[in-house]
Amino acid sequence: MTLTAGGDIERLVRLLSRLPGMGPRSARRAALALLTQPQARLVPLAHAMEAAARNVRTCSVCGTLDSHDPCAICADPQRDHGLVCVVETVGDLWALERAVIHRGVYQVLGGTLSALSGRGPDDLNTRSLFERVRSGEVREVILALGATVEGATTAHWLHERLAPTGVAVTRVGHGVPIGGSLDVLDDGTLAAALSARRPA
Amino acid sequence: MTLTAGGDIERLVRLLSRLPGMGPRSARRAALALLTQPQARLVPLAHAMEAAARNVRTCSVCGTLDSHDPCAICADPQRDHGLVCVVETVGDLWALERAVIHRGVYQVLGGTLSALSGRGPDDLNTRSLFERVRSGEVREVILALGATVEGATTAHWLHERLAPTGVAVTRVGHGVPIGGSLDVLDDGTLAAALSARRPA
Ligand SMILES: [Zn+2]
Ligand SMILES: [Zn+2]
Repeated sequence: MTLTAGGDIERLVRLLSRLPGMGPRSARRAALALLTQPQARLVPLAHAMEAAARNVRTCSVCGTLDSHDPCAICADPQRDHGLVCVVETVGDLWALERAVIHRGVYQVLGGTLSALSGRGPDDLNTRSLFERVRSGEVREVILALGATVEGATTAHWLHERLAPTGVAVTRVGHGVPIGGSLDVLDDGTLAAALSARRPA
Repeated sequence: MTLTAGGDIERLVRLLSRLPGMGPRSARRAALALLTQPQARLVPLAHAMEAAARNVRTCSVCGTLDSHDPCAICADPQRDHGLVCVVETVGDLWALERAVIHRGVYQVLGGTLSALSGRGPDDLNTRSLFERVRSGEVREVILALGATVEGATTAHWLHERLAPTGVAVTRVGHGVPIGGSLDVLDDGTLAAALSARRPA
């Protein structure tokens, strides 16, 4: 697009193309889709994006994303802070919150152990989980990880680490399809998986 | 996401979900992908989006998108203003510009005639094309429309409208695959199609 080098469109396409999963072609398509929006829709979106970029941070307790640290869940005295649900991603936490089936708190690992991808224990956000367990405030840890090889490996590793502390460790059970991720499940399946949890 | 109602994340997801082709799920995924970007990448993107929203407009001559009206192409005295290439979309214009094979100017129709979709002549951006042809400044009109039923119908209709004016009307020829759109073609195919143009 030599014609607009340095122009607004070229800059938008260039910045979009730096997002993960975007190539030059998908960035051009996204830019066109955005530019054909009315200004009254695009300007608020730009403002929301800037506000999110400036305000949203990782909760130092559980690892989710929120405008406050600790996050709204960790700061909520109505939630059961003795019941910690361990999930892989923020998207998984959002799925459980939408289903309104977990009244405890969370730990977001930020991924799974993976020999193939070279992700080891140090790459997981677990420090604050172990701290909370050691402090004695945690009664039960629910492992709500995906039913994948990596999820099972991670659950097994966490169970081994947590067992000596004496905390109850359970896993979500029936319902999570093999190879599936929690994020795409309907609320009913999520509820079934959570209520059918068993000792890990 | 009851937890963040009214929060930065909820607002971003809500505004993203209003974009065409976005549902609640894809908006959540897009928001998460954006929020895991460093602030140093997301803030400039938000600024670029706002600048584009405020500055980019439709060129009153050719119908493309640019920060200026007339656009950089229409305002360029180096381009051949007697040679007008008619394309369906801004994306098609960008594809031809990237290939650097057309030194004339453009007319962006903004779509095609389509009986099925109920798009008639009034839905196409043709007024400024006919004005330019009537003014006598145009020597040749190249119809660079997709090789689809709608593209062929539109080319035929334009040819019938333009023939009485005496302007030369040509079509891009070999190279545009049947059912294909110009936007996805490589530069060589685009160059072949353009140089193999023939009277319509
Ligand atoms: Zn938290
Ligand atoms: Zn123009």
